[in-house]
Amino acid sequence: MKFATYRLPDGAVRHGEVVDGGRVTDLGPGDLTPVVAALADGGPGAAPSGGPARALDEVTLLAPLLRPGKVLAVAANYQEHVTETGGDPIDKERISPRLFIKPATSVSGPGEEIALPSVSPSIDWEAELVAVVGRGGKDIPVEDALAHVAGYTIGNDVSARKMDYGHERDTGDPAVAFFDWLNGKWLDGFAALGPYLVSADEVPDPQRLEVTLEVNGRVRQHGDTGQMIFNVAELVAFASRLMTLEPGDVLYTGTPSGVGLASGEFLSAGDEMTVRVSGLGSLVNRVR
Amino acid sequence: MKFATYRLPDGAVRHGEVVDGGRVTDLGPGDLTPVVAALADGGPGAAPSGGPARALDEVTLLAPLLRPGKVLAVAANYQEHVTETGGDPIDKERISPRLFIKPATSVSGPGEEIALPSVSPSIDWEAELVAVVGRGGKDIPVEDALAHVAGYTIGNDVSARKMDYGHERDTGDPAVAFFDWLNGKWLDGFAALGPYLVSADEVPDPQRLEVTLEVNGRVRQHGDTGQMIFNVAELVAFASRLMTLEPGDVLYTGTPSGVGLASGEFLSAGDEMTVRVSGLGSLVNRVR
Repeated sequence: MKFATYRLPDGAVRHGEVVDGGRVTDLGPGDLTPVVAALADGGPGAAPSGGPARALDEVTLLAPLLRPGKVLAVAANYQEHVTETGGDPIDKERISPRLFIKPATSVSGPGEEIALPSVSPSIDWEAELVAVVGRGGKDIPVEDALAHVAGYTIGNDVSARKMDYGHERDTGDPAVAFFDWLNGKWLDGFAALGPYLVSADEVPDPQRLEVTLEVNGRVRQHGDTGQMIFNVAELVAFASRLMTLEPGDVLYTGTPSGVGLASGEFLSAGDEMTVRVSGLGSLVNRVR
Repeated sequence: MKFATYRLPDGAVRHGEVVDGGRVTDLGPGDLTPVVAALADGGPGAAPSGGPARALDEVTLLAPLLRPGKVLAVAANYQEHVTETGGDPIDKERISPRLFIKPATSVSGPGEEIALPSVSPSIDWEAELVAVVGRGGKDIPVEDALAHVAGYTIGNDVSARKMDYGHERDTGDPAVAFFDWLNGKWLDGFAALGPYLVSADEVPDPQRLEVTLEVNGRVRQHGDTGQMIFNVAELVAFASRLMTLEPGDVLYTGTPSGVGLASGEFLSAGDEMTVRVSGLGSLVNRVR
């Protein structure tokens, strides 16, 4: 099943099931948080159904989860991306997933314009598969972890590569570089998400999906989720060792090689990013 | 004015104004989010009043904000704390505030027990003044920043100093240390908050408050908010350059010297931490 959160012409925000390719059946007010919990509790048939149907082109699609309780993301989870950005190859046996948190205010929806910020000249793209937590939990074993995933959507972990606050700063200190890197993940709109939530039963193997990103129609990233260093189940399990996961939490699972940082080419106003993940549609965001 | 969020014996969560020392006047359901917005929009007299009064000892005090949209915190914001933990002294002209995010699931209330986690043997305390955002905003000038603060409460930024996931890890890589440090801030209950929200008009100068922390009655931290490297206004202004601040966001403003990391003494089950900030009461949490 495929779900979406959307805005009606009168401004009301609703969520529903996407059916027949081009229609959405209304399931209730607000975003998909109640659906992800229902999906996890009762399996794919458990989401409510019914309500009036509307043509998708009569509504504005929004991020499936508008204000996730947690927006988790992982750095350095595709080997080629690690090496293209100057890192040493990662030995999975000797490290842990490199998780970070993006604020809920960074979430943007499909088609939403993302503003270039004043605090950085180098804004970059990162195409990602995103897992949406359905059933929460703490200390979830790896072998149970996928049962806690309600479904999947597409993410673009937009990233500022260099912060410029208008005054000279001590860039020789590795802590400065680390906090700059972290801060560069937080800017408004920098967690693009959507357009659909596809229930986990329609994604039999989340490690066999193609991930591509185009900027203005030119392919910049083209990877496969099978290249992940830590797979979705391992990421969910690891995150749950640190904190209680809750329905509607989202997890960006890392990006393949081909980011702008590797080539030194960054986004300019007017550029259009299109992220595709097999079976999940495409997520388009223009930069302004 | 002084406000609190509390649970009634029947389980209902309410918020109210604390009056006459020992009573709370009911202002409505849920936590103090509506009050912080009202305080910012209309000044200290703008919070609604009325409702039945109850004795404080008939209710259970909870965190003033149960699920803040953002839990922001700053590392290395008191010079003596920076040097006691092995860092170089910070030249404010050449660095920026070192912000990080804690997840909403890390929030715990006054009197709540905090569980020692399985993933770390070294759990530490950090007494802090916490500013609560009343009026949101983006790119807030330093000179306007305090007008965006609805009030203040006490925080304990509980921190795991060393992560142990049960397998050998490459600790020679500075990135491992950074992500471990970050992850150690996220554990359930590790953002203790409360017991009261004191409106900003009752805190004429947030940089003239004593901050102390006792473990089992022994003073471990004793500082003054005047020692902050970046003051509250500068922290709010800086955070708002990165992201839109919203009513109910909370900002932990850093901790003075005296953490366990400096002496090598960490928390054990049964230990009781008491944080005091002038005029804001005391925040007590026992570790289990």
